[in-house]
Amino acid sequence: MTDNKPKSASKTSAMWGGRFEGGTSAIMDAINASVDFDRRMYAEDITGSKAHAQMLAEAGIIAAADADSICAGLDEIGKEIAAGGFEFKRELEDIHMNVEARLRELIGDAAGRLHTARSRNDQVATDFKLWVRGALDGLDADVQALQAVLIDKADAHADWVMPGFTHLQTAQPVTLGHHLLAYVEMLGRDRSRIVDARRRLNESPLGAAALAGTSFPIDRDATAAALGFDRPAANSLDAVSDRDFAMEYMAVAAILAVHLSRLAEELVLWCADQFRYVRIADAFSSGSSIMPQKRNPDAAELVRAKAGRVIGGLAGFMVVMKGLPLAYGKDMQEDKEPVFAVADTLALSLAAMTGMIEGALFNKDRMRADAAKGFSTATDLADWLVRELGMPFRDAHHATGALVKMAETKGVDLDQLSLADMRSVEKRIHDGIYTVLGVENSVASRVSFGGTAPANVRSQVASARRRFLGT
Amino acid sequence: MTDNKPKSASKTSAMWGGRFEGGTSAIMDAINASVDFDRRMYAEDITGSKAHAQMLAEAGIIAAADADSICAGLDEIGKEIAAGGFEFKRELEDIHMNVEARLRELIGDAAGRLHTARSRNDQVATDFKLWVRGALDGLDADVQALQAVLIDKADAHADWVMPGFTHLQTAQPVTLGHHLLAYVEMLGRDRSRIVDARRRLNESPLGAAALAGTSFPIDRDATAAALGFDRPAANSLDAVSDRDFAMEYMAVAAILAVHLSRLAEELVLWCADQFRYVRIADAFSSGSSIMPQKRNPDAAELVRAKAGRVIGGLAGFMVVMKGLPLAYGKDMQEDKEPVFAVADTLALSLAAMTGMIEGALFNKDRMRADAAKGFSTATDLADWLVRELGMPFRDAHHATGALVKMAETKGVDLDQLSLADMRSVEKRIHDGIYTVLGVENSVASRVSFGGTAPANVRSQVASARRRFLGT
Amino acid sequence: MTDNKPKSASKTSAMWGGRFEGGTSAIMDAINASVDFDRRMYAEDITGSKAHAQMLAEAGIIAAADADSICAGLDEIGKEIAAGGFEFKRELEDIHMNVEARLRELIGDAAGRLHTARSRNDQVATDFKLWVRGALDGLDADVQALQAVLIDKADAHADWVMPGFTHLQTAQPVTLGHHLLAYVEMLGRDRSRIVDARRRLNESPLGAAALAGTSFPIDRDATAAALGFDRPAANSLDAVSDRDFAMEYMAVAAILAVHLSRLAEELVLWCADQFRYVRIADAFSSGSSIMPQKRNPDAAELVRAKAGRVIGGLAGFMVVMKGLPLAYGKDMQEDKEPVFAVADTLALSLAAMTGMIEGALFNKDRMRADAAKGFSTATDLADWLVRELGMPFRDAHHATGALVKMAETKGVDLDQLSLADMRSVEKRIHDGIYTVLGVENSVASRVSFGGTAPANVRSQVASARRRFLGT
Amino acid sequence: MTDNKPKSASKTSAMWGGRFEGGTSAIMDAINASVDFDRRMYAEDITGSKAHAQMLAEAGIIAAADADSICAGLDEIGKEIAAGGFEFKRELEDIHMNVEARLRELIGDAAGRLHTARSRNDQVATDFKLWVRGALDGLDADVQALQAVLIDKADAHADWVMPGFTHLQTAQPVTLGHHLLAYVEMLGRDRSRIVDARRRLNESPLGAAALAGTSFPIDRDATAAALGFDRPAANSLDAVSDRDFAMEYMAVAAILAVHLSRLAEELVLWCADQFRYVRIADAFSSGSSIMPQKRNPDAAELVRAKAGRVIGGLAGFMVVMKGLPLAYGKDMQEDKEPVFAVADTLALSLAAMTGMIEGALFNKDRMRADAAKGFSTATDLADWLVRELGMPFRDAHHATGALVKMAETKGVDLDQLSLADMRSVEKRIHDGIYTVLGVENSVASRVSFGGTAPANVRSQVASARRRFLGT
Repeated sequence: MTDNKPKSASKTSAMWGGRFEGGTSAIMDAINASVDFDRRMYAEDITGSKAHAQMLAEAGIIAAADADSICAGLDEIGKEIAAGGFEFKRELEDIHMNVEARLRELIGDAAGRLHTARSRNDQVATDFKLWVRGALDGLDADVQALQAVLIDKADAHADWVMPGFTHLQTAQPVTLGHHLLAYVEMLGRDRSRIVDARRRLNESPLGAAALAGTSFPIDRDATAAALGFDRPAANSLDAVSDRDFAMEYMAVAAILAVHLSRLAEELVLWCADQFRYVRIADAFSSGSSIMPQKRNPDAAELVRAKAGRVIGGLAGFMVVMKGLPLAYGKDMQEDKEPVFAVADTLALSLAAMTGMIEGALFNKDRMRADAAKGFSTATDLADWLVRELGMPFRDAHHATGALVKMAETKGVDLDQLSLADMRSVEKRIHDGIYTVLGVENSVASRVSFGGTAPANVRSQVASARRRFLGT
Repeated sequence: MTDNKPKSASKTSAMWGGRFEGGTSAIMDAINASVDFDRRMYAEDITGSKAHAQMLAEAGIIAAADADSICAGLDEIGKEIAAGGFEFKRELEDIHMNVEARLRELIGDAAGRLHTARSRNDQVATDFKLWVRGALDGLDADVQALQAVLIDKADAHADWVMPGFTHLQTAQPVTLGHHLLAYVEMLGRDRSRIVDARRRLNESPLGAAALAGTSFPIDRDATAAALGFDRPAANSLDAVSDRDFAMEYMAVAAILAVHLSRLAEELVLWCADQFRYVRIADAFSSGSSIMPQKRNPDAAELVRAKAGRVIGGLAGFMVVMKGLPLAYGKDMQEDKEPVFAVADTLALSLAAMTGMIEGALFNKDRMRADAAKGFSTATDLADWLVRELGMPFRDAHHATGALVKMAETKGVDLDQLSLADMRSVEKRIHDGIYTVLGVENSVASRVSFGGTAPANVRSQVASARRRFLGT
Repeated sequence: MTDNKPKSASKTSAMWGGRFEGGTSAIMDAINASVDFDRRMYAEDITGSKAHAQMLAEAGIIAAADADSICAGLDEIGKEIAAGGFEFKRELEDIHMNVEARLRELIGDAAGRLHTARSRNDQVATDFKLWVRGALDGLDADVQALQAVLIDKADAHADWVMPGFTHLQTAQPVTLGHHLLAYVEMLGRDRSRIVDARRRLNESPLGAAALAGTSFPIDRDATAAALGFDRPAANSLDAVSDRDFAMEYMAVAAILAVHLSRLAEELVLWCADQFRYVRIADAFSSGSSIMPQKRNPDAAELVRAKAGRVIGGLAGFMVVMKGLPLAYGKDMQEDKEPVFAVADTLALSLAAMTGMIEGALFNKDRMRADAAKGFSTATDLADWLVRELGMPFRDAHHATGALVKMAETKGVDLDQLSLADMRSVEKRIHDGIYTVLGVENSVASRVSFGGTAPANVRSQVASARRRFLGT
Repeated sequence: MTDNKPKSASKTSAMWGGRFEGGTSAIMDAINASVDFDRRMYAEDITGSKAHAQMLAEAGIIAAADADSICAGLDEIGKEIAAGGFEFKRELEDIHMNVEARLRELIGDAAGRLHTARSRNDQVATDFKLWVRGALDGLDADVQALQAVLIDKADAHADWVMPGFTHLQTAQPVTLGHHLLAYVEMLGRDRSRIVDARRRLNESPLGAAALAGTSFPIDRDATAAALGFDRPAANSLDAVSDRDFAMEYMAVAAILAVHLSRLAEELVLWCADQFRYVRIADAFSSGSSIMPQKRNPDAAELVRAKAGRVIGGLAGFMVVMKGLPLAYGKDMQEDKEPVFAVADTLALSLAAMTGMIEGALFNKDRMRADAAKGFSTATDLADWLVRELGMPFRDAHHATGALVKMAETKGVDLDQLSLADMRSVEKRIHDGIYTVLGVENSVASRVSFGGTAPANVRSQVASARRRFLGT
């Protein structure tokens, strides 16, 4: 029979061992230990353990003095870690064992009572849920901050006219304020998803133990309440094997990242010399020592790109969870790094985007000039024919097409056609038509709910402040 | 200057044209036309158009008679399509133009008034939202149906003992009912996500027009109400360029598909000869003409695999939306096929899973036998030492380890160790210990909320019926 | 014990059964049967079966007359299917059983000998490999066709000057021919990947039987040769469970799709009014009845978007294969639909892109004008200082920055600064400097291998024709 | 007009600034600077710069003494970094500027000549290509090491009988050696992909400069040769904007990771008490203080899971590259972190898998016993009927089905049926049939090329050693 011990001196193991001095145990440490990244949950681990210890004491499972000692020790450890003086040990594998081992050093045998009626499985799930909950709260604040600067900018530019694009072709004039508020709506849905995800995850796994629950008379309602959960999770097997909250967090994040990538794309476009609609502050651009006038929208490009990381993190973690039997499997340890990476990526992207928008200097003339190009008020003309002359929509379109063609041939804009010219196409046209042809007239006329008229933008700004900023 | 017309007779165009008889126009039709798939939204298109026509009449924008004529024509078209007698034309590009062209045939010029104060952009968004909303409702019903059979099975097997696994290693005994209820919880979260997604999408894009709103005095609240939306979308640019609802639908679906893949994996495992915990009904297995006893869990494997399609659909559509500037871009036409594929995939997967669970025949003896293996009640023993003798948790673990090692050496199970044996490790042990060592004792003792005890399972069944089935 | 038969009349099954008339068997048919899509491999199935039958006869395993009869019958079936007269039956599950059942109708019992020493597992793998091999060949031809039109366009525009962008900011002038050749290089790497993938997949699974090989004295070399494979696959378990070729095909396709999305993005940008570098032929644009001058680059947007479908197909199928134990699992049936979708998507995207490029009309003036903006020859100036005056690079940059600032202040371009102006910054500057400052001078000077000089472009065109078109 | 400077004291910026002390510049540093991760390419940066400096001297562009000074300085910096004494500065943004700034400190103004005829764009592409090339070489060695232990194990277990599974159901007996060699084939394809990817990337971007090439008389062939590239890249725009090599590296890695996940899944299954086919060495398992007999296959689960990270990295980076216009964009800076993560993940996964296989102790009895279950030789019986009695395949299947049913009813195995029993189904059966019914007979009979017979396995082992290990 084959010998069960890896031959550490063999040629092949030397090959792979070369990268991992210390041989197999070094490899196992490297793949298995999680303390290098899960230390980030130290505060949650301490909070969770304190709640558990207090409940154990209140339920009479451990002595009150032991609980006090445990809590004091944990507080001490929290301070040590916060101060940077804690020595994390890889051989203790994860943050939980690092904290527990230190607790034993600090308070002695009482530390051994903390793990009563608990397992690492429910402890990990609890800590990580608390962390993700905090990440959702932070994300909500960050998104709100971006909404706030967008709303301010929309307010300040409620009547600045710019081209409204479809297919990146000028379609109709809109207002810059209206355009910016579109993102406020997207971000509003993101925040709504954040709130839903937070509410849904807010069930406590603590007390599910390894997977089957426990025979100790624990009070799961008490620990749930102490940790701000709405209730204990209803099924212990589910509680330890559920990572929905991580998947949902990343799904919410990915849709948000897509939104940011769209806004970032627009900033990159608008910074191009061909557009020049915006100037991003120096702080968020990079220059060239040789072309001092140049400013590359680096931060916008990076925000655009970082959607890739978030989408990849989501897809990758779904791969991890696919086809896993119940209950806990070590595969689930792959949950934290993508979630941490997504959280960092979004915090940074949102900060950068908020900064860019706040410092953005828009170019009124360039936007106004482009808005007027391409017969962008043709729709207004057609609508006027329908509204004022009662023409059927498709006939009005036909007449408008003829007028646009005429203007194109003459090399003039629609409002530069004479009334005679117009009447050669449709004899009932009268000079009322000129009231809808300028871009200012056009945007001012679009007063349907949600439309681009400056008056609408101003009321939408007020509404957005109420709905999203609570002001 | 280069000639702008593709040389249809050139060697190169012959190469690519070879696959597309009819040359460039055939290629453009093939890539551009969407009626081959978007015809699936015909009912939504008709409903949306009727609501729009009625509103136009009520607002005095078109004549009541025209609206009546339009609605009657649309109803007629709906019947034609439902009956299979409608001729879809690719050159009319999409379902919307196919319906409108037919309407003109049926009712003449009045058809031309339908498109007043509307654009294909808001029309598409409205139709597709209505379709996705219906898909969410259907999905909720399908998930509930699976919950119902799982709850019934859990009820019927509330006290059947099986191994509880971690790392696919026997960890502690649990009950089959408890195990099945874990999936009921997962599916409950899925339904909660469905409800949230439905609520969030339920804002009407209709009236956003091309992108800027309209100058016609439309009543967006009226069309929103007529179509069952909660309110009109607040920003017209956002309304036509938003595809969050498609992304969120697929994200919800992907998490659900991961859940189904986990249950499917367990069915595949449990059907293996090495487990033999379950026998799937013939209807969902495939056999072998040569090995009549063989039954392959084909349907379970397919459900497991189909998570890939859903995750791929989600990731792929996020790629489409990444970095798109506002407002409408043709890229967004890539929204429907993945959503339709995801909807079909999930309907099928859920139907198959519901059928498999409903017809599943579990093997009590096999599960019970495996549950008792591997000293699965070691934790119960340790907990007893803590609870009854007041030993610190870590010390109790140490003593238990010694007892397991002793049992392993003797080749017996824990409850077959004599009291003398036990006392050789810890002298305070008394015969009360035998009450926790059998697997039935073990599961019965786990009465903490959410634990696996049969009594808990029964109350969880009742609670699940109330929470998820409304009974 | 639970009854193993699904209660078809139960309330719950009615819920899910509702969508699948015919109950459980209809559900199983819908999820299990593959003939709706795998019929696409009918020609490969017939070719593979003929090779197998001939080998069986040559090896003396079946009679020559039987083999002849089988082959004649298969040819007949091939004709029936090609003519559209074949009735596919879902209850026969897949293309293989449909063909075999029809063969029995046509030639009687001899049909029963075809499956000797073969299993559906190696048959499926063989058919699908043949299909993917054909898809790779078709893809190579399609990519080559696009290279051909790009090279022609590069040749025709070898000296047209346009801005070279970094960060979508004008950086240095380049030539349009040079820009287009960049895509020829990308596509060249794609073709190189196609060739490698084809070579790698070209091992025959036929004869691996169910998974273990066979005891019949088959000649796998013979069938491999007959089917154009380089050799038989070396391990029967691997042969039936390998889907690397599908994953690699989609990976190759995904990188190609990314390339196409980049070119498509540039077309969309260049069609924007702000750029107007190109006019795409009417055949690949969509217009507006109301704005006749408008042309939306729909086909380019769709090509850009379709990268999503390909990337999603790749990621999704990797999810399917992740964690599958050997050998064949039904999960693998999920291989065909994404591969077919990717093949169709790419054929269409390439045909559309080839057509767009072939008919593209570039705007020399617009590109030339933009190329000259933004002091795009600042690098040339700095290089001149280094080369002619021997200044260290960083010092030359500093001086150039000062000159650009001066030009910016004066509102002139670099070549409009007087020699006196220039000497105020660096007194050694002489009038040789003006030879490098115009954009034509700039591009003409970049003669390093791979550089943008028109002379280089022309030699690169010749080289590309040789390397990629064999001309 | 809006002020362009972010109001650092505003309420909103305080919100997002809170996480980034130092305000906007801290945010920009955090999102923009890459030195925290790209320092990993320091050796490639130094090698690339030395090759460039030497070429500049040889081409007479800089003085030989300057080149010598530059190279000596770079060597010194390499030593400083290797020794850990180098101070990386975030404000210098990336590894390239950190090295250059230090070079100036060390050698003064001559440092300023290094960047002649080079840009950061071609420098980054060169460095990263060199790094990925090294990663491919390392990967090839790691995969070969795993092949080596698999081949050794296959050799040692060439005739150990185990069940061959389809659908995780026992289908036919195979040999363990044969099963392990299936993975050797998969890994062989992976290595073939690695070789192809390496060859394809091996074109030098150096000398492409910013994007347009240069007017300096550089010798790109010389730098290419000095850096081990096969040739210079043919198009300068492509050279700086190409990240195919990163995508292809991750695609190759992802298919490999899928293979590892399949082997890992089998290890997890085989470690389950229900299988017990293998015992993984302690070094790669984790235990339980309370259940000393327990060993969780943690490392196998982690290898299985890590496929997710690799697939996510691939998909995510394709998202980044999708739709990027030429040439360089800052988005591309997102290339390194996923590539580094994939490289680390695979190195670790391969080391762990190699260690697990090397130390794996297989259980001959368990595998042999399972192989005999489920009438696994039914196919052999049917093949015998075809071969010896000349029955058509489908008839032989029918007779076999009847015999299996009979054996099942009697509760015996096929080789325990009497000749009389057999003849009651097919009267021509004679006692030669017993030669194919035992599992040893079955595997021994499968001698077709690639089949599972021990003799085949031994020759395949020899062949694999030749093909993959060069021995």
